[in-house]
This record gives sequence, C-alpha cells and structure tokens, in this order.
Amino acid sequence: MKALQYVSVGQPPEVRDVPIPAPGPGEVLLRVTAAGACHSDSFVMGLTEDQYSAFGYPLPMTLGHEAVGVVEELGSGASGISVGDPVAVYGPQGCGRCHSCARGVENYCPHAADLQIYPPGLGKDGAMAEYMIVEDPRLLIPLGELDPVATVALTDAGLTPYHAIKGSLDVLIPGSVAVVIGVGGLGHMAVQLLRTLTGATVIALDISQTKLDFAREVGAHHAFLSDDQAGARITAAVGPGPVAAVFDFVTNEPVLKIARSLSGPLTDLVLVGAGSVETTVGLLGQPFGSRFRAPYWGSRPELMEVFELARTDQLRVETESFSLDQGPEAYRKLHDGELRGRAVVIP
Amino acid sequence: MKALQYVSVGQPPEVRDVPIPAPGPGEVLLRVTAAGACHSDSFVMGLTEDQYSAFGYPLPMTLGHEAVGVVEELGSGASGISVGDPVAVYGPQGCGRCHSCARGVENYCPHAADLQIYPPGLGKDGAMAEYMIVEDPRLLIPLGELDPVATVALTDAGLTPYHAIKGSLDVLIPGSVAVVIGVGGLGHMAVQLLRTLTGATVIALDISQTKLDFAREVGAHHAFLSDDQAGARITAAVGPGPVAAVFDFVTNEPVLKIARSLSGPLTDLVLVGAGSVETTVGLLGQPFGSRFRAPYWGSRPELMEVFELARTDQLRVETESFSLDQGPEAYRKLHDGELRGRAVVIP
Amino acid sequence: MKALQYVSVGQPPEVRDVPIPAPGPGEVLLRVTAAGACHSDSFVMGLTEDQYSAFGYPLPMTLGHEAVGVVEELGSGASGISVGDPVAVYGPQGCGRCHSCARGVENYCPHAADLQIYPPGLGKDGAMAEYMIVEDPRLLIPLGELDPVATVALTDAGLTPYHAIKGSLDVLIPGSVAVVIGVGGLGHMAVQLLRTLTGATVIALDISQTKLDFAREVGAHHAFLSDDQAGARITAAVGPGPVAAVFDFVTNEPVLKIARSLSGPLTDLVLVGAGSVETTVGLLGQPFGSRFRAPYWGSRPELMEVFELARTDQLRVETESFSLDQGPEAYRKLHDGELRGRAVVIP
Amino acid sequence: MKALQYVSVGQPPEVRDVPIPAPGPGEVLLRVTAAGACHSDSFVMGLTEDQYSAFGYPLPMTLGHEAVGVVEELGSGASGISVGDPVAVYGPQGCGRCHSCARGVENYCPHAADLQIYPPGLGKDGAMAEYMIVEDPRLLIPLGELDPVATVALTDAGLTPYHAIKGSLDVLIPGSVAVVIGVGGLGHMAVQLLRTLTGATVIALDISQTKLDFAREVGAHHAFLSDDQAGARITAAVGPGPVAAVFDFVTNEPVLKIARSLSGPLTDLVLVGAGSVETTVGLLGQPFGSRFRAPYWGSRPELMEVFELARTDQLRVETESFSLDQGPEAYRKLHDGELRGRAVVIP
Repeated sequence: MKALQYVSVGQPPEVRDVPIPAPGPGEVLLRVTAAGACHSDSFVMGLTEDQYSAFGYPLPMTLGHEAVGVVEELGSGASGISVGDPVAVYGPQGCGRCHSCARGVENYCPHAADLQIYPPGLGKDGAMAEYMIVEDPRLLIPLGELDPVATVALTDAGLTPYHAIKGSLDVLIPGSVAVVIGVGGLGHMAVQLLRTLTGATVIALDISQTKLDFAREVGAHHAFLSDDQAGARITAAVGPGPVAAVFDFVTNEPVLKIARSLSGPLTDLVLVGAGSVETTVGLLGQPFGSRFRAPYWGSRPELMEVFELARTDQLRVETESFSLDQGPEAYRKLHDGELRGRAVVIP
Repeated sequence: MKALQYVSVGQPPEVRDVPIPAPGPGEVLLRVTAAGACHSDSFVMGLTEDQYSAFGYPLPMTLGHEAVGVVEELGSGASGISVGDPVAVYGPQGCGRCHSCARGVENYCPHAADLQIYPPGLGKDGAMAEYMIVEDPRLLIPLGELDPVATVALTDAGLTPYHAIKGSLDVLIPGSVAVVIGVGGLGHMAVQLLRTLTGATVIALDISQTKLDFAREVGAHHAFLSDDQAGARITAAVGPGPVAAVFDFVTNEPVLKIARSLSGPLTDLVLVGAGSVETTVGLLGQPFGSRFRAPYWGSRPELMEVFELARTDQLRVETESFSLDQGPEAYRKLHDGELRGRAVVIP
Repeated sequence: MKALQYVSVGQPPEVRDVPIPAPGPGEVLLRVTAAGACHSDSFVMGLTEDQYSAFGYPLPMTLGHEAVGVVEELGSGASGISVGDPVAVYGPQGCGRCHSCARGVENYCPHAADLQIYPPGLGKDGAMAEYMIVEDPRLLIPLGELDPVATVALTDAGLTPYHAIKGSLDVLIPGSVAVVIGVGGLGHMAVQLLRTLTGATVIALDISQTKLDFAREVGAHHAFLSDDQAGARITAAVGPGPVAAVFDFVTNEPVLKIARSLSGPLTDLVLVGAGSVETTVGLLGQPFGSRFRAPYWGSRPELMEVFELARTDQLRVETESFSLDQGPEAYRKLHDGELRGRAVVIP
Repeated sequence: MKALQYVSVGQPPEVRDVPIPAPGPGEVLLRVTAAGACHSDSFVMGLTEDQYSAFGYPLPMTLGHEAVGVVEELGSGASGISVGDPVAVYGPQGCGRCHSCARGVENYCPHAADLQIYPPGLGKDGAMAEYMIVEDPRLLIPLGELDPVATVALTDAGLTPYHAIKGSLDVLIPGSVAVVIGVGGLGHMAVQLLRTLTGATVIALDISQTKLDFAREVGAHHAFLSDDQAGARITAAVGPGPVAAVFDFVTNEPVLKIARSLSGPLTDLVLVGAGSVETTVGLLGQPFGSRFRAPYWGSRPELMEVFELARTDQLRVETESFSLDQGPEAYRKLHDGELRGRAVVIP
C-alpha cells in the first residue's frame, strides 16, 4: 500500500510503498478514509537528529495522527466493533488500565511514556496510508453517517481546543471575555466552540488579516492583529478589565507577552501551541489566582462530545483536501501558513 | 492608644502612641483582642524605598492583617452586627459590588487595586493596635466562643492554605500524593487541612529537622529535608509516579526546582509563598495538563468554613504569644525562623 | 403614589393611592421604571384565606417581585450606589450574613424564613407602584444602558431558568437532549439559555400550538404537544434513550408523568413550576442516578450573569406592556394564558 | 466446583455442585478468594415468582456480586492482566462503548438493560463459587497485597456509599452536618468515608443500640435512635438548622419521614437503600434547592479510589467470615440483622 512517511531527518516526507499491516490479537485493521495534517507533524519534522532521537520516534514513520476509516479486519479476540463500521481514531491512548485511563482521560496516562505507548503518527506508524493498525477497539469512536473528510480533523484540531475550553468553563461566565490567539486549524475550532459552549465574548488575534476575516466568519465577536496594540484594541471593544481566559495556539515569547498583558485576577492562561516559553510565576510573579495551564489533546469521552457537536451541526471544520501523493504539498502549505483551516489527506 | 507601626523603610517597627480612630458612616470600630504576625509583613518591611513607594503604602502604617476583636462602636448606618460581638476580620476585601465580590470572592476583586482598597496592615492601618477600623460589617465573621489568641491566625495562615487546597481538590483523590513545602505558619495548617479534607498521602518538606518533626506531629505521613534528595525519598516512601499537587509556601528557585521534579501529567503546582520565579511553561515546557497556580488568600465564605473547622476541633494553630510591646521581637523571631507556628500579638 | 395592591383574598388586585415610602437607615428608595407580572403572583392570589394566612403575607400588599428602577433617595449610611443610578432589584434576599449569603446564594438562606425576610411583592410591598423600598444596596444590580421594560423580567423569568439550567450543566453535554415543558415567561427564556450555554438538543413541550411556534422562534430544535404521544415524538426526532434533563415549568401530575417517561440513568428532573406532586423516589422508585431537584429563583451573581447575557444580545425577553391602571388586566391575561412572553407594568 | 445458588423462588440458597466455567474469547476465569453477601441478594430472594420473572434473572443463579479472586485463565485475546494476578471485580458493568462507559461510569450505562448486561450474582452467575467468569479484563482492579477477605466488601459496601458521598461533596463543607441512616454493611463505611473525605459533623441513626455503638466506634460524632425524637436529638447536639445531606441506607416510609424532617434549603436527600417510597416533590413540595437522589453502586475509577483508601489504612470493613457451606447461614444472619458489618464467604 502507499504511505506518506517521514524517512530522513530534515527532509520532506515521501510517499512510499509498504506492506499492508496485519492486526495482532485484540487489534483492528482500518482502511483509512481520511487523515489530517497537523502543525505538530511539522514540529516533529523540524527537529534536529538529536532532538528526534530524544523523542524516541522510529524512521521511517508513517505520518498522521488524525484518522478516520472503516474497519477492515479484526485481530483475534477484538470485540465491540464490526468489519465495515466507519470509525474515528482516538489518538492519545494510554495504558488503558490506570485511574486516568479508567476515566477515559488517556491523554494524561502517567504510564504511557514508560510503556512507550505512542499516538499513531507520533512515534509509530500513523494514518497517512491506505491502511493502519489500531491497538484496541476502545480507541475507535463510531462515525455513523458523518463525512470522513469533513470530520477527520475533529480528532485533534477539534478535540484539543474542546478540552482546553472545558478546563476554563468555570471562568467563562456570561460577561466574560475569551481571547483566542492564532486562527489556524485549532484556533478556528476554538472560536466556534467558545460560541457554542459559553456566553463569553470571543476575540481572536492573529498576525494575518485573512485569518482575522476567517475568525469573524466562524463567529468571533472581534478579531484584531496580534501586535502590541492588541490590548488597547480589546479594551476599546469590550471595556477595561482582565480577560477571563486566553487560549494561545502559538506559544512563543511575543504571544505570551500579549497574553500576560491581558490578564488579571483569575485569568486562565491556556498554552496549547507546541512550544515552550520562559516566564515568571508565583504570587508576586503572575496575577492573583491566575493559572498557566498546558492541556494536551483531550479525553476519550470528550472526543465523543466533539463528534456530537458535528452531528448536530454545531461545529464545522474548514478543510482543504489532498491526495496521498499531494501529501508533501499539504505539509508545505501548512508550514508556510497558506492553508485556511485544516489539510486533509484522502488515501 | 498603642499601635505597632512601620515608620521608616528598612527600620524595625515601633510601638507608638496614636489616637483611637472614629468609625465613619457604615464603618465599625473594633477593640482588638488578638493580631497575627505574618511573613508578608516581613516581606513588606524588607522592601527598598522605591519598592515600598511602588506598593503605594503609607508611612507610618500600623501592622497586622490578621485580626480578631470585639465590636466597640458602630458608625451610622452600620448594621447586622452589635456592640460587644466577638468577630474575626476578613482581610482581602474588594469593592463589594462586582461579580467576584457578590460571590464573596473579594480576594480576586478586579477593581480593588484601582479603587485603592487595601487589607488592614497592608496599605492602611491594621490590627496591631488597641483599636482598629473595619470598613463594612460584611467583613466581620462571628467568632462565638472561639478563643481569640488561638484562632486569629486562621484569618490568613488558615484561610490561605485552605483556599489553595480547595482549588486542588479535583486532583487530590484517594491514592494521590500531596506535597507541602515549608512547614511554617501556613504550612503546618496545610498539612492538617489536607488530612481533614482529602484522603491523599501528605508529605512535608522543609530545610529544618525541627519543622519536619512539627509536620509529623500535625499529621504529615512523611516529612523529608527539601534538598536534592527529596524526590528520591518521596519515591522510596510512596512509590514512583508524579505527585498530584505541590503546595509551595516558599516560592524561590531551588524550591520550584524540587516542585517541578516531582511533577507529571495533571500535577497542580500551587505557589503560595510571597515570591516570584522564572520558569518554563507551555505544552513542551511543563508536564501535560499541569497547572501553575498562584492563589491569593481566600474568599469570605471560605473564611467561615475555616472557623467551622476550628469550632469542630479539626484545625489547630500552633501559636506563640507576645504583648504589643514585644511586637518587634515577634517579627524578629519570625524573620529568623525561630517560631514554631504563628506569632500572635495581644494588644 | 399609585400602587397595584392585592387587597382582599380571592378578589382581583386594585390600583390604590398610597403614601410614598421613606427609606430607613441603610435602605434605598427606588423610582420604579418597570415591574413584571408572574405566575407566582397569580398563585398567591389563588390561595384561600387560610392558605394566605399560613404564608404570613400582609393585606393589602403591593404586588410585583420583578423590579427595575432609578435610585431616588438613600437612607442614612446606605452606600455603594448613587441617586440617579438605574438598577435592577435582586428579589430572593436572605439574611445577608450567613455562609449562603456570603456566596451570594441568598435564595437558599436558611435564616430568611425565621427572620421573616420576604422578596418584594411576596410578603411585603413590591414593585407595582411608582416607588419602592429596597433594604440594602447589595440587592441592586447596575442596569447601565439596558432598557427597563425589555429587561425587568430577567430578574425572575430570566434568573430562575438560568439557575435551574446551571445546576444541570454537568449532564447537558454535547449530544444530550434537554426538554423544556411549558413555554411561558420562564420557558421561553429556558429555551434561549439552553441554546446559549450548552450544545444540547433542545425540545419544547406545551399544550398550545401557538406556544410551540413561539418555542421554535426562540431557538428550540423541536417543539411538540405535551400529550401522551410526547415521548414517541421525541424518540422519533432524536432517537431512543433517556433525555439528560427535563425542565418542568408547570409541575403537576400529568406533566411529571411525561417527565418521568422521558427519564433514565442520570436524568435530571428539575421542577421549577410553583406546584407540588406526589411521586415515587428511591433506588427502586426512580431511574438509577436520577435527581428530583426543586431550584428556587437564583443567586445574586447569577442575576449579574443574566444581565450580561442581555447586554451582549444573547437573551431577549418577549414582553407585553401595561400601565399601572392596566395591571389587573395584565394578571387576567396571564391567568388565562393569553400572553406571549412576559407582562410588564410601567408605573 | 461448589457454588452457592438460588434455586427456587422463596427457598433459601443451596450449595450445589456445578461445572467449572470456561472463559470465552476476551473473558477471564477467576479463582474466587472471597465473596460478600449483600442485602440486595436478600432483596432478590424475597421477590415473588412474578417479580423475579420481571427482573429477568435465571434460575438457578450463583449468588454474589462482591468478588475478589486470582486470575486462573485468560480467554483468547484477553489482555492487560496475567494469570496469578490478585484482582477485585467491578460489578455494575455496562456496554463498555458508550459515553458513560468511556468515563468509567458503567453503573449508569443507558444500554446495559437493553443489552441484558448484568452484574455477577444479579442476573447471571456470581462470586459465591470456587470459580467465576469475568467478561472483560477492564472490569478487574489489581488487588496487590490487600487481604481478600478484609477488602472484598469494598466492591459494593465500600463503593456504593463512596459514590453516594462524592455526589454530595458540594454541600458537605466544614460546619455542615451529614446524617447516615442505617449502620449496616454500607452505613458503617459511609461513616468512615464522611470522616475521611469531609470536615462535616457525622451523625448516625439506627434502630439498634448495638449499631449506634458500632457507628461511634467507626467515627460518628453522634449516634441516635432513628425514632420520632431523632430530629430533636440532632438539634440538641449540633444546633438548629437543616442538615446538608442525609444518606438513607434503608429507604422506607418512616425513614424518609425522618430524612425530610431534617431537611431544608439545599439538603441532599440521598436514597441508597434497595427500596422505593412515595413522597412529595416540586418547588412547593420539597425544601428549596433540595434534591432527591438515587445513586446506584459506583464507577470504575471510584472503585480504584476506594481500594486506595484501604491501601492507605483510611477505610476498614468490619467482616464476619463463612465457608461456602455456611453461605445460607450468612444470608440468614444478614436477613435477621445479626451481623456486625459484612458477611464474607470464602470458597
């Protein structure tokens, strides 16, 4: 079968011919119907050799951690799912046995790292291929009548902001202000989710005017350039006072500076971008009662909730489609900021 | 009347003779029966002239933000309280009108700073005097039969860790591990509160063996030196895996280093000490799902809850008593780490 | 001044001439700009002499517990508000001192009954007059630029469903179904609030086709007659399975029967109507994990949140206006189900 | 193998010789090391033929839904557990695929009834035998070094009150009063759990003085006869005012009458006993903001939490041991109220 693989550190991914994998005991073989391309893939492909080794990822590695498909074959003992079922894949799997996993919060399984359990496409072969293996039927969410291409990105670009926002609902009361920084694949979901799940006023920031228009289209009350006037524009639009939550889908120093300038008592600073920043914390180093959170992906029940939002027409991903052969071009456009919404590869 | 005042930046506080204040409309005059001395007072008296000016505090300023007393006189229109009532003072007052204040969460009032509303002893005259003014009866909690000296420290040294711990209850499930760093006035309360309110295993860290014994006396399951072996000792005691929450009552670089070394997915890093530290945040800069929180003091209903714990013998402050004339000595012992528990001044 | 008063048990209310009241110490005199008429007023006017006595209400009594107005005069010591401020009145006031009141949850003050503290118009003179007294400035919420007539009903018809819904948010996840029974003053608010605050599918039931159309206009996904086919119609529309929450704004036996027929594991049965019903409870008498709740009105911070929803155009009350002289007619139309939305009296 | 089976409706259970079952694909065979006897077994054996048929349970049926054992054999494809592992069985299993099950809240699976999924011993063969089948490894919680006899009852008698209490934690703040009615197998756990997890004052009610002594031994602050003076005794002990929560492990009319007499605003009436009662609900039929809840058993992560409490010596079940041949006698003593704590059968 064809697979889009990362083969050499620092080189673009390649479409290669590889054997169709066979499901082991308890496993499931999926025929992939759609796979999403994500900034974290770009991030991984941007690592140096040393960094890549430190992550412990193999080479070659089939890309893609956003996946939907149809059950093609069940390994022995795999149950609860049938051949022919359309399903979405829950990516951030854990050990499946601990307290976190028992709650479906596999994304925070404390044992996953030690057990070398990886999401597809981020440490083992992923979804950008004609077929893929899923380790356990519990990781499959029934897709029903939902369109694969239209919804595959919900598995990360939908789930991640959903999880981030659920963790801030306590502060996102009516009258509050939520700020979304970075209106890409995840950010344009965040805007919609904030509108659907809260009564907050939603403000989007981005460096691109096109993205600001995009933010307004999907429901942002206001959208401003994320420069050093952002704070002033926000105050002009909604009045003075701290914002309740900032969802930062970028996570670098200039953006954190803006986020901090908007914060005050109880502000939730939610850092979702694949980055890290130096900052000051502590009672005298951050606003009273504020939080720096770094939510990761989302839980299994949350993924079900996200699909329900799509099923009831309350969440829509903007997508651009590519064939498997066009996969490298999809990543190039993603890297260069030329996409509006999410790139989806159809194997 | 006598008052213990901070008079000159960099100099020890002095006992001075000042007029008894008169309550304005809506205000209450208290005869102070006990006042607590706190590290944050020491912190303020350690500021340079420039820093002190930046805080906007007056000079001279009567110290003391932990206060209990008896209602001596009511200003016109003050209601809901009677002359002779024994009461405790809620310190971190807010505007009294906004959404935060309507919930009793005055400690996070977003308007207090702009309105120059200060706690007693931290920006205006405080409790280390024979009498003090309280702006509004809503700030007074009935003390009932509780002993003033034994309970005055609950207003900060009790309330602050109580509030910090309540914010972490979601992660402090049975089987979890809570770490308290710094077993002083607040820390020895935190140990008791964790034992009373959660089923977590409680571990105390301190640089002093005496404080470790103290921690064990008040209920810590384990107590270890907070050096670079702390993590190894904790693992030996409770097994590997991240701790659920670290309550840091110190907040400096070496302590944060320990706190981070104990953390993993979903760890709550709760920075309560009057300090600030540089650190790395973000999805790739802190454990997945972890939080850096900086809770400040506590809410009005929480203060009531803390007094209920004392009333039902579930919380006990260790105190050392001083007269007003001995006040400067109390602060010296506090500064030099010679106290066990809390210093209480009896005017 | 003119006041619409309930004078004789069993007789319609009358417009009478009464003295303008004077504010006592700490109190506030409002010039009323709008007052809402509510089913609970009708309920009270439907009581027998014995029942009315049992409630302990006076006669004559000015009606009206939904009130907005302008501050006309401050009693001595009343602060935090200024003459000329447009304000809304928080009705379900409590003692103002206990733990519930400290959180702003005055609607559940355990001392109010003993202290004979009543809402305006429900035990003491209310808002259907040119002027009214409010006991404490804390009970006044700034109205700002909001239109009095358009928003007065938020103080009960908005606040009550808001509070009811907030208590069910844990079960109203995306993919869940919420049912609103009774699309009157409160019910048409509930439909909007469910759409604004949750991703649930919202179904309205009523006995009137006109009200069903009304429900659809304000956002219900489906609206059905509340007869014995209601369950079947709901299943046809959203599939089988229990609904997550039923908000019953009627509360009588036939309606509870419908509500129970829709329920299953974890269903929240929320009884908001001014009624009482016999039913079966217990592990073998109600669905596993289900709850019968009887929320009352709402809290002070929740009222602020409701006004913020209006301020941000996310909540709109349908109203019909009446002069004070037309007040009796307003109550007649309310009683006879001839209103669409809420009756507002403009003194 | 020997099994204690319910064979004929209305007759005592019998020890019979039956074949050792064989695990199917994905299933696990356990060698049972301890099984608990529960009032709900007695309840089932007290049903008439018609009622028993209506439950859809088979005959004969091996009793026992509290189970711990050692993994004896794995069916094909069963993974995540090894032969020889000591484990406890999670009883209230669900479909394993839906949103509730994804959160581990299998006890409220809305599909279990339709799919005829039963707990062991309550609809299919249970734990009172030398061996038993468990359908899926996810239902097994590692027991570690914990003693089987001492901890088997945690799987229901521990988990059920734990789950009931967790649902009331929002009202069980310091200063609140919790009442436990019925100090049997579940009630004596509830007393300990309330002491461990809350700062509430705990009052136990029972009709037996012996049980009241038992309640005090395991930590109740007060213990009173549950007669018509119960309310007066509680008021004398803790002062007037509503209790925060009543945990009713009996659930019949006289007990509900007591529970209601103790209730007021926001009281949580938690009906845990295997019964049903007629009562009045609604805004005018129950205290404002009160809830009638009927929690059922508990969730999978909660069972893990309960075992952690045992592991950290914070929860201890009082037990009386019986051999399998003595099983009928165990149920007789249970039925006649002659047990102190829980009966455990050791096959």
